[in-house]
Amino acid sequence: MRTQVAIVGAGPAGLLLSHLLGLEGIDSVLLERQTPDYVQARIRAGMLEAGTVGLLRDTGLGARLDVEGMEHRGIHLQWPGERHHLDFVDLVGRSVTIYGQTEITKDLMAAREKAGRPAYYSATDVTLHDVTGQPHVTFVDEAGRAQRVDADVVVGCDGFHGPSRASIPDAEVWERAYPFAWLGVLADVAPSADELIYAWHPDGFAMHSMRSPRVSRFYLQVAPDEDIAAWSDDRIWDALATRLGHPGWALETGPITEKSVLPMRSFVATPMRHGNLYLAGDAAHIVPPTGAKGLNLAVADVALLAKALTASLKDGRDELVDAYSDTALRRVWRCTHFSWWMTSMLHRHGDDFDAQLQLAQLRRTVTSAAAATELADNYSGLPL
Amino acid sequence: MRTQVAIVGAGPAGLLLSHLLGLEGIDSVLLERQTPDYVQARIRAGMLEAGTVGLLRDTGLGARLDVEGMEHRGIHLQWPGERHHLDFVDLVGRSVTIYGQTEITKDLMAAREKAGRPAYYSATDVTLHDVTGQPHVTFVDEAGRAQRVDADVVVGCDGFHGPSRASIPDAEVWERAYPFAWLGVLADVAPSADELIYAWHPDGFAMHSMRSPRVSRFYLQVAPDEDIAAWSDDRIWDALATRLGHPGWALETGPITEKSVLPMRSFVATPMRHGNLYLAGDAAHIVPPTGAKGLNLAVADVALLAKALTASLKDGRDELVDAYSDTALRRVWRCTHFSWWMTSMLHRHGDDFDAQLQLAQLRRTVTSAAAATELADNYSGLPL
Repeated sequence: MRTQVAIVGAGPAGLLLSHLLGLEGIDSVLLERQTPDYVQARIRAGMLEAGTVGLLRDTGLGARLDVEGMEHRGIHLQWPGERHHLDFVDLVGRSVTIYGQTEITKDLMAAREKAGRPAYYSATDVTLHDVTGQPHVTFVDEAGRAQRVDADVVVGCDGFHGPSRASIPDAEVWERAYPFAWLGVLADVAPSADELIYAWHPDGFAMHSMRSPRVSRFYLQVAPDEDIAAWSDDRIWDALATRLGHPGWALETGPITEKSVLPMRSFVATPMRHGNLYLAGDAAHIVPPTGAKGLNLAVADVALLAKALTASLKDGRDELVDAYSDTALRRVWRCTHFSWWMTSMLHRHGDDFDAQLQLAQLRRTVTSAAAATELADNYSGLPL
Repeated sequence: MRTQVAIVGAGPAGLLLSHLLGLEGIDSVLLERQTPDYVQARIRAGMLEAGTVGLLRDTGLGARLDVEGMEHRGIHLQWPGERHHLDFVDLVGRSVTIYGQTEITKDLMAAREKAGRPAYYSATDVTLHDVTGQPHVTFVDEAGRAQRVDADVVVGCDGFHGPSRASIPDAEVWERAYPFAWLGVLADVAPSADELIYAWHPDGFAMHSMRSPRVSRFYLQVAPDEDIAAWSDDRIWDALATRLGHPGWALETGPITEKSVLPMRSFVATPMRHGNLYLAGDAAHIVPPTGAKGLNLAVADVALLAKALTASLKDGRDELVDAYSDTALRRVWRCTHFSWWMTSMLHRHGDDFDAQLQLAQLRRTVTSAAAATELADNYSGLPL
């Protein structure tokens, strides 16, 4: 078959690109190696920048988000004995919104079905061909049939492990492994605080988050090779109560429904374009989750790329596609730095001098308007 | 002999403390192991915070500073291809002033002589006694005579290697050695730029500074164990021209009159008070020179301590002396963090990912008002 844009990967990045291109009358085909149920259930990010929320609303995806999304004015930063609220709305005039990646994916899948845009799930052997000429993608469909999609351009939204990035020869790669991981916990209990709590603690970082008014999400800093079997529910609640503890505040507990160890990594591959192949989202870059930037950065890539491909494919103007890689990478490095900075400030690592530097930075962040503004500006998201 | 305050060390910190106490009618005696000529010639810091300048002026030490000091509105930050000016006056309403430590020492020594306050130079075997009771200090004077000074309090302004810190039992110490040093160069040539240039470069950090309208000061990042014999004048000028290079800008060269390798270290010892012994300046903390904080932090300690000792010795009010260590350490950790941050941003270390983080931070610092303000606020100095 033939389309204008072959999109490899139907996670939120691929689905949103297909959606935005569709609004401009540009055809696309989505290829996804997983089933729709798998993609829909993938629990990841949950914090949306103001610009992400605006984009979803402006493109017809805001109905459920406006009802179920939980708008937060900021975050709490704490260390033993002190908890401070940073009010992003006061600082930079922008809020953030809790709305799970699962929910965005659900909305995008519904929009795709309603618009009748084609998608092939459970596609195997996805292979990119001639990406610097007339590209096509071959794959084996769910029924075992060999298929071929010819396209003007191919976009890799296929994540860190997908095949697209490998089609860029001589890509430069920057990578950082962190000497810790997150133990992520989902629990059926109402959140114990109105907004997220980022806690520095001598035992390690902890975070209080939420998925809905009835479901809380927690994270604990653990070793990268942590054995999850060593973390009974009781031990998890004890550690959370200690690390998140604050005078006059109580952590509510409830049944833990999921726990898993999440690795922490920074990764950037450049360039993000090679001929008629473009990369967006995790296919080109990974950030540690501390700054809540992963999904938002994928949305920013896709918003930029949709505009650029529209100009190129509809109007024959190539300035934006030619600038895509450089333009996207400016934001990628900003968010990579911010995510590293938040991660470095909040996780125990190094020696006692590092701990004092972290506490000095935390104290400064809650007492200097400039330092608080810098965090708020990055966290709530730079303009798309 | 007997005095109210025995001050160990007659560098700028000790001299300034003696001066400030003298203005309040409080007696002090200075003990210094070096000769006056040695102390006066010690080339160190040259950049004064706005608050330091204000204090010197307000206490009668501004006459020569006002004539010879070079007021700077800010600094230049650069990396290959880009040079940006951060205007501290625009950002935070404060300027900084180039005026060498040698000149401040000269002014303070003149004030001491004029006031007739006693000082013992070339004092050896300086030993502190009974600092938690009725303290006294013994030493051998220039003529070889054993001497004893009885005092209400002893203040250690005797630097990192002085004897005072050792009189605090169970002191906690935080330390960081950096994997690089500075090659410092003094040259008889007019500065090639109006203000300081801090340059990030793949070969390593470089800095353009000045001591007077006819004397320039340069620094080059080198290895901690660098052999200075490997740095001919030609090699120095070549490295400076490369690392400081910017389109349309030329580095003026001239006779190099001094070159030396300066180690880079962070060090904090707590507490800064033990009984009737107080520490100020390098005796309690060392910062790497990148943020120009060393002398300014010593001045801040001394300003705080002079006020506290005045309240205690003249009025019998001990709140300020009781709070001295905690109060001083808040600023110490702020400046320790800032100095570490400037150092970490500007020096090549780690891997290529670190280099990209540095460039991302530098770009952000010159494009975000909040980030620029945060640097300007710390660099130009928090209120005394």
